[in-house]
Amino acid sequence: MAPRIHNFNPGPAALPLPVLEQVREEFTNFKGSGMSITEVSHRSAAFEEVLNDAIARVRRLLKVGDNFSVLFLQGGASTQFCMVPMNLIPAGQSADYINTGSWSKKAIKEVQILDKPYKVVASSEDRNFRYIPKNASVTSGAAYLHFTSNNTIEGTQWPTFPESGNVPLVSDMSSDILSRPFNVQPFGLIYAGAQKNLGPAGVTLVIIRDDMLERSPKGVPTMLRYTTHAEKNSLYNTPTCFAIYMAQLVLKWLEETIGGLEAIERLNQQKAALLYGVIDGGDFYSGTADPDSRSLMNVTFRLPDENLEKKFVAEALQNGLGGLKGHRSVGGCRASIYNAIDMEAVRNLTDFMKTFAQKNG
Amino acid sequence: MAPRIHNFNPGPAALPLPVLEQVREEFTNFKGSGMSITEVSHRSAAFEEVLNDAIARVRRLLKVGDNFSVLFLQGGASTQFCMVPMNLIPAGQSADYINTGSWSKKAIKEVQILDKPYKVVASSEDRNFRYIPKNASVTSGAAYLHFTSNNTIEGTQWPTFPESGNVPLVSDMSSDILSRPFNVQPFGLIYAGAQKNLGPAGVTLVIIRDDMLERSPKGVPTMLRYTTHAEKNSLYNTPTCFAIYMAQLVLKWLEETIGGLEAIERLNQQKAALLYGVIDGGDFYSGTADPDSRSLMNVTFRLPDENLEKKFVAEALQNGLGGLKGHRSVGGCRASIYNAIDMEAVRNLTDFMKTFAQKNG
Repeated sequence: MAPRIHNFNPGPAALPLPVLEQVREEFTNFKGSGMSITEVSHRSAAFEEVLNDAIARVRRLLKVGDNFSVLFLQGGASTQFCMVPMNLIPAGQSADYINTGSWSKKAIKEVQILDKPYKVVASSEDRNFRYIPKNASVTSGAAYLHFTSNNTIEGTQWPTFPESGNVPLVSDMSSDILSRPFNVQPFGLIYAGAQKNLGPAGVTLVIIRDDMLERSPKGVPTMLRYTTHAEKNSLYNTPTCFAIYMAQLVLKWLEETIGGLEAIERLNQQKAALLYGVIDGGDFYSGTADPDSRSLMNVTFRLPDENLEKKFVAEALQNGLGGLKGHRSVGGCRASIYNAIDMEAVRNLTDFMKTFAQKNG
Repeated sequence: MAPRIHNFNPGPAALPLPVLEQVREEFTNFKGSGMSITEVSHRSAAFEEVLNDAIARVRRLLKVGDNFSVLFLQGGASTQFCMVPMNLIPAGQSADYINTGSWSKKAIKEVQILDKPYKVVASSEDRNFRYIPKNASVTSGAAYLHFTSNNTIEGTQWPTFPESGNVPLVSDMSSDILSRPFNVQPFGLIYAGAQKNLGPAGVTLVIIRDDMLERSPKGVPTMLRYTTHAEKNSLYNTPTCFAIYMAQLVLKWLEETIGGLEAIERLNQQKAALLYGVIDGGDFYSGTADPDSRSLMNVTFRLPDENLEKKFVAEALQNGLGGLKGHRSVGGCRASIYNAIDMEAVRNLTDFMKTFAQKNG
């Protein structure tokens, strides 16, 4: 059997090895229940403990106030793209969106399909989304201001979040949730598909402020209303139990082994600094994002030509470094260095990059 | 560590032990990829092979024609309750529903919320859903006829499916899909949450006929349109990879170890016959469903009084027989004997039932 590789996939992505080993260890008999976690009832005390522990850890890690609900839903960020405007744009109001790339555009498309009023108040499309806009003129009285905190494909990330005054922020944080501390209070809603920093694909974290819950108009189906899930602690219907269980283990690892968000932020800064250092240290590699907008999660770069990029990705894999191909829509290379990627993995990558540049430069 | 128990949970439910053992075996390194199946990209050849094998097995097992798409979605049957009427009731048409219990009522509620025209053409609510209606006068030109093939809570099951002429059948088969062969051709759409016969919670099987795909009106969000998922082979967004992977293993077990749907139907009939035989064999236990409407999946029964029922559930668990409490909305006892429950488990249960009746009768 081939050994485990360093996995720089953009999502589904690397998960902490101790978490994977614990899942394996207890997979056919969960905590003495005589059942696999995949067989345990979602109405059992055993599963409710898992769910409530995951929620409590999200609350502690992100310092989420009591005026928010923490939910674990299905359907990914893509389902949130429609649930947000279905629920949070009251009659007579309009929503503001900032367009920083492919995922922002998908979010905006759903408002259009639903024929709800909206305005794009800032965009970086003029330069192929290589940067995060500095100024957004938020509409007074807007229902919310939506932005994508980290752009997985374009390799950009908001260094600090936009100021929106009284307008609630709504953010797709799928690819940088729990990678650094931030102030949750200005947010009306935060959502994140789990498959980057939080767990396996199949569960979506939603953090929603109480006043947002009251907005849902009549006519929104039960499963698409945030209130349905908030009132039932994410147990209105059978939740995606295994994915929540793995998320709980990842949250425990982040809190207890890593030491929380300040600690992981330092690690993430160090990892990104090492990688961008190699990219900037010569002429062979070039970063695709403006330096002040660079993502600490998805490091996107080009090589002198596409043939070298293909060779780079293939030779890296032979050296136990996987998932380095850029998104098909933009090409190039990308190293996704989410929370579970440790310094050793990045050092292995930068060593390989230096050698590859020497040989091929 | 306590040993594994016989798990009669209604869902999430027992899964085949060889499947659980294979998941454990390859959990940290999936087929030599150097990654866990929870870390593998959904765009990789390795995952597409899993997905396509799962689809091919559903097609073979259920003899699904080329004029159907087989999809693996998120959100459970509860999300299908709204997706079906959102997509499949064209302007000017009305849908027929048959009401056979709690889950039928939830499906009907979503049509009401969406304010779409519908008609309940048969119901067994007059006798607390103890039976499956014999005659449904299907409306000529109805968009579809919706029914719940097996009623998990009430312990009833359609012995043969309703005749609807030219009106397409739509069915929630969450709790008896793949438990017996049937003719898929009259169905416009079949849906099933996986967590009974197919795999862990978190994935929903949808089988949809081509002519149904053409019905979706404008204004339905991307993730809620069947066409979105059919056109992209369930890979429009990141699917619930791990749950699909486990479903693929369960489908493989059903096809290769059990021998397909005729074989599992015989087993399911034998298991149910043994259990109903003990219930009918004395005065201590009494079945709650009319004999001609009894479910082969969820065997619901009462004891002489509620205290004895509590004692029964508790003592059964001490004897390694779990999950026998009836649904909180109806009380009593319930043994869910889905595909993964073998004869030995049922014999253990019937032996216990006989002894318990002797001691407490």
